[in-house]
Amino acid sequence: MKNYCVGVDVGGTTVKMGLFDITGSLMDKWEIVTRKEDGASHVFPDIAASIRERTDRHGLTLADLTGVGMGIPGPVEEDGYVGKIVNIGLYDLNPAKELSALLDGVPVKAGNDANVAALGEAWLGGAQGYQNVVMFTLGTGVGGGIVMSGQLFSGSHGMGGELGHMTVNPAETEACNCGNHGCLEQYASATGVVRVARRQLMQNTGGSVLRDIGELTAKDVFDAAKSGDAVAMAAVEELGRYLGLAMSWVALTVDPEVFIIGGGVSRAGQILLDVVRTNFEKNIFISDKKADVALATLGNDAGICGAAKMVL
Amino acid sequence: MKNYCVGVDVGGTTVKMGLFDITGSLMDKWEIVTRKEDGASHVFPDIAASIRERTDRHGLTLADLTGVGMGIPGPVEEDGYVGKIVNIGLYDLNPAKELSALLDGVPVKAGNDANVAALGEAWLGGAQGYQNVVMFTLGTGVGGGIVMSGQLFSGSHGMGGELGHMTVNPAETEACNCGNHGCLEQYASATGVVRVARRQLMQNTGGSVLRDIGELTAKDVFDAAKSGDAVAMAAVEELGRYLGLAMSWVALTVDPEVFIIGGGVSRAGQILLDVVRTNFEKNIFISDKKADVALATLGNDAGICGAAKMVL
Repeated sequence: MKNYCVGVDVGGTTVKMGLFDITGSLMDKWEIVTRKEDGASHVFPDIAASIRERTDRHGLTLADLTGVGMGIPGPVEEDGYVGKIVNIGLYDLNPAKELSALLDGVPVKAGNDANVAALGEAWLGGAQGYQNVVMFTLGTGVGGGIVMSGQLFSGSHGMGGELGHMTVNPAETEACNCGNHGCLEQYASATGVVRVARRQLMQNTGGSVLRDIGELTAKDVFDAAKSGDAVAMAAVEELGRYLGLAMSWVALTVDPEVFIIGGGVSRAGQILLDVVRTNFEKNIFISDKKADVALATLGNDAGICGAAKMVL
Repeated sequence: MKNYCVGVDVGGTTVKMGLFDITGSLMDKWEIVTRKEDGASHVFPDIAASIRERTDRHGLTLADLTGVGMGIPGPVEEDGYVGKIVNIGLYDLNPAKELSALLDGVPVKAGNDANVAALGEAWLGGAQGYQNVVMFTLGTGVGGGIVMSGQLFSGSHGMGGELGHMTVNPAETEACNCGNHGCLEQYASATGVVRVARRQLMQNTGGSVLRDIGELTAKDVFDAAKSGDAVAMAAVEELGRYLGLAMSWVALTVDPEVFIIGGGVSRAGQILLDVVRTNFEKNIFISDKKADVALATLGNDAGICGAAKMVL
């Protein structure tokens, strides 16, 4: 009986995995190191061996799995093809086909990790019960994920939902990692918030608790903003202005029921939600029916949950 | 045998209609006046009477129709509900249900007119053969239409593809019709191009052929730009900058195979295509696989074609 499935979240440092039953109960979760040496040739064999070992430990065989879903940190095309996974060093591959071959033909599906996380939040997290969901993951970078009619949406060239690279400020002078100037990621990621706060500290001669902190983090900026620090609040408002603006563009394109904000930065909570929602609603005049904005609830488990949902 | 269908394009001045066979051949097209008097109560009865009369003229009955598709100048929700059709003066209705009741129960489907036009271009026009299409209609306003997997896409609140109201310039001081400031429509519509050209004329003391024209039109601006007029070219470039930017946001969200530019302004042709494509590609750094940009080919027939396709 195929009553189980595995969700895999492939990251640059670790691969997270979860064993689920088909009702969505997480029976076990674990992680392994992403071995990038030898041209990253061990990554998929390691995952396969780990799945075999763990299913065995639960008294199951591969024949008990409906399939394995996998989130990949790169654009995944409709047929599963991936041109590059930059932060692992893998190029020109079909991860789903590779893993399936290593698992005696168990069906494997792959999707972009940010899209997969959105599917996880739609299934078991902050967007539970919604069919049309857009998620912004504010981490080291900014990822985007789109779920339409309950299904993962990846677009014609695997570029659907690459929301972190929307140009929100054409006047920006510093370059984004992608080479463009003024991407959302430069303001709304953990590194982006810190960058903007540092810039505010240079332009602003007023006092700020941030001046006494050596290695500034996004958490420092939000904590200071919550305690009324004007410089920190200016950085938070800049994040809110650009993320709210980008959300309004997405709403006028795919018109989701709900936006979910996840990733490390989302731990800032209500202050983030408030500033983003205000700026989002300010830019949607043509309709009174606006999408909700909510925080993600699954944390690091969003990836394995969404990956599992892909094969159910 | 249900081998025929009717496409209806409801406008503020006229209702355009087309009788198609199910292979997509347009057998007949005609239009009637949109009677807005008496609370616009005649609009749907007039359409129904016209369809009955025209099918009869072709030796057909309502029983020969697979259905009637209808483009509506307003947001249409998933169940067909329409809150308002501002430029006709109709509120709180389900146009598809109303027309079906007037046609002895023939199946009727309704969609937003800009979305329906995109479906028409995907079926028989500039996007023929593509499954994922986004269309910008540059007319009096700016409409947007999205076709995904060959199907019309309208979003959760009928607001999907309302691309004309994306905020492209938060610094704009003049208000858009919608009440917001800096919408794409304020730069890329026929009235928008003229508005920007007038502003350029005021800010720019140099000579321009546009200064000698009394009632400036979008065509005047493009014609002058083509003949090398610097002021006119500045207005065209402003259109290109903002439309290209908006396209990049849409590409990073739904990632279509092709963008189609239609509406009266698109008659400017190659000069428009060039300036838009340059600005679009400039804002997509993260992938080499960029959507094509092409001109619409169906002109005023896009609406009736797309409407017909809805019921095939």
